[in-house]
Amino acid sequence: MTSIDVDDRGFTLGHGLFETVLWAEGALAHWDDHAFRMFRGCRNLDLPPPDPAALRAAAEAALAAAGSPERAAVRLNWSAGPGHRGLDPPADPKPRLTAKASPLGAPPGPARLVTTRVRRNEHSPTSRVKSLSYLDNVLARAEARAAGGDEALMLNTAGDVACAAAANVFWLRHDEVFTPALECGVLDGIMRRQAIAAARDLGLPVQEVAANLGRIAGAPMFLTNSLIGVRLVASLDGRELAASPLVVAIAKAVSRAR
Amino acid sequence: MTSIDVDDRGFTLGHGLFETVLWAEGALAHWDDHAFRMFRGCRNLDLPPPDPAALRAAAEAALAAAGSPERAAVRLNWSAGPGHRGLDPPADPKPRLTAKASPLGAPPGPARLVTTRVRRNEHSPTSRVKSLSYLDNVLARAEARAAGGDEALMLNTAGDVACAAAANVFWLRHDEVFTPALECGVLDGIMRRQAIAAARDLGLPVQEVAANLGRIAGAPMFLTNSLIGVRLVASLDGRELAASPLVVAIAKAVSRAR
Repeated sequence: MTSIDVDDRGFTLGHGLFETVLWAEGALAHWDDHAFRMFRGCRNLDLPPPDPAALRAAAEAALAAAGSPERAAVRLNWSAGPGHRGLDPPADPKPRLTAKASPLGAPPGPARLVTTRVRRNEHSPTSRVKSLSYLDNVLARAEARAAGGDEALMLNTAGDVACAAAANVFWLRHDEVFTPALECGVLDGIMRRQAIAAARDLGLPVQEVAANLGRIAGAPMFLTNSLIGVRLVASLDGRELAASPLVVAIAKAVSRAR
Repeated sequence: MTSIDVDDRGFTLGHGLFETVLWAEGALAHWDDHAFRMFRGCRNLDLPPPDPAALRAAAEAALAAAGSPERAAVRLNWSAGPGHRGLDPPADPKPRLTAKASPLGAPPGPARLVTTRVRRNEHSPTSRVKSLSYLDNVLARAEARAAGGDEALMLNTAGDVACAAAANVFWLRHDEVFTPALECGVLDGIMRRQAIAAARDLGLPVQEVAANLGRIAGAPMFLTNSLIGVRLVASLDGRELAASPLVVAIAKAVSRAR
């Protein structure tokens, strides 16, 4: 088992980034997008970026160590590395690259979303990066499960819809597609981009908006993330949501593009 | 060097707690308060609590490993332990206890506070616990340093004063002492409690309030945390703050109680 020093700032302070990449059909899906997002995140966190070749090699080594599964999630961690006591980083940070591949089973069925009390903080750059400080999302997921759901719908602190605990969120109204704007405290998801492009290719207008729960009530919804692509939403806070053939069409288009 | 498995949820998700305890004059200061806060935090994070004797033994072992310094900060980590991929915890979590002691030098001088754009999320239970997801505070500190300060003043998302990156905040007006209410997204600091008690012992009324920056403008301020006790504030956003003999009196009273 790969290990991390107990004084790595990724462990002590959640100072670091990660990516979760789908390995399927012999390829690391959307590799460049994942690598680029990690490089961008390094600027937010004042970290030197990983070497692109080393990042790729770490992913491949992790797959080999996991016995080269047919489908896997490859988790890449770029933690800030050893630090002295306290919040201030060392003058010369030495981030640490680690990776682990986990075989992937069948994708989950349609989501039962529960709106959580835990909110996304749009007033922090951490809401825009995949950071190792992921506890809000962990607690949101736990809250959703405790309420009988299987995924959280997180609002931001202004009360606008932001995202799921581990996915971006979309909904439809009158053949228009909506998703929370990045400014709502939303991760710039790779599948979010794919779904926006797929919807537009299908001739559907897409709007990135700030919208409260009232604006999405009863609308067909779907989630996106890198491992699942598009996931339908069966219910929100116990209320069944209508299925939409448009969601199915977007899901198929995203799936073809992977 | 103690190490952490790369799939420990403390590392991958910031799922865990920590305490930083002052070792001075042959004692772990306010030990019971620190241990109790960690036990309470476990309820928030759905973790089994550490064994009190093991916690104490870990602190003592860390001090011994550091060569038994006269004064030290003992950092105790209670991370959620190994997890499978994703946000959901394992059915039977096995948290991991780790500790490290770092010799402490002279306390820093009066703080130069800078109000940061990074805000404290009062809409998350993580704002009330010392969790391993500490990135907001890291970024707030970095922002304050980049602006020429040495500590951040964090507002919450409602725009009320919450805390410093690594301390609680107090201010004085007309011989009354004020500090942000816990509901503002504030850690229930051990020295915060001590300072409140010390001020009341001195006959000063103490109010826990929601207050915006306008309410504290120009007021004498001080910070509290477990390692420093009371720290004076020299300036806020470049504006020098008046010293107050009452702050000095509170600092002395807190120091005597340690």
